[in-house]
Amino acid sequence: MYGRRKAKPIGFSNRDIPRRLVSVGVHYIVDLDNVDNDLIVDNDKLTEICNNSLEKGEATILDKMIHHFEPHGLTLLYLLSESHFSMHTWPEHQKIRIDFFTCEQNESKCISVIDHLKSEFESTSMKINILRR
Amino acid sequence: MYGRRKAKPIGFSNRDIPRRLVSVGVHYIVDLDNVDNDLIVDNDKLTEICNNSLEKGEATILDKMIHHFEPHGLTLLYLLSESHFSMHTWPEHQKIRIDFFTCEQNESKCISVIDHLKSEFESTSMKINILRR
Repeated sequence: MYGRRKAKPIGFSNRDIPRRLVSVGVHYIVDLDNVDNDLIVDNDKLTEICNNSLEKGEATILDKMIHHFEPHGLTLLYLLSESHFSMHTWPEHQKIRIDFFTCEQNESKCISVIDHLKSEFESTSMKINILRR
Repeated sequence: MYGRRKAKPIGFSNRDIPRRLVSVGVHYIVDLDNVDNDLIVDNDKLTEICNNSLEKGEATILDKMIHHFEPHGLTLLYLLSESHFSMHTWPEHQKIRIDFFTCEQNESKCISVIDHLKSEFESTSMKINILRR
């Protein structure tokens, strides 16, 4: 059911690993700067944005953790069948840092999630790095 | 208590942000290849390695999620006061992918955790990328 794993035999030699499997994961690293002052402290809205983005991308949420820091700041962590998604906020610096790590065969879901995030943060400076790991 | 947040006023202009705060976080991205066949499927041992590494680095674990995939594979996610730590395994490709994201003032803890991981995986090919975000 959970698409990340394929029932392949373990323990085969490196020579048997297809060339494309030098990387098994793709990691979208999203840095938001100059986030709107009202939005950056609205933890409920930010959580809703993450939930909706993952739903749009048809990601499978297996578990979730939320922590509200004092005096402000939010950490969201989602354990996905596709790997994980995280958001951290630094309201005092108007910054949000997001990670979406997934296996390569699920990259289309990742792109869909990122596209939804772009629309939600359209007025915000967004830098995206993509690592193949 | 939780070192990540400082009680600074929010909403000040960008001109007030000190130059060093162009980045608020430091992200250690650790890719392990050719992991020993016995270790890569030993989810209990891998969990113990992560727990011990975070303890050595004096990281503050606020919450934790574990998922064992079928037929094999492990995801560990730790919500830390310093941000987050994750591990994903692909036993069929002998690969482990680890992330430690923290705020810059806690980088020494991060280095200590990574040093412990190096000692635990000393016979494994380890590539480390460091992003300042």
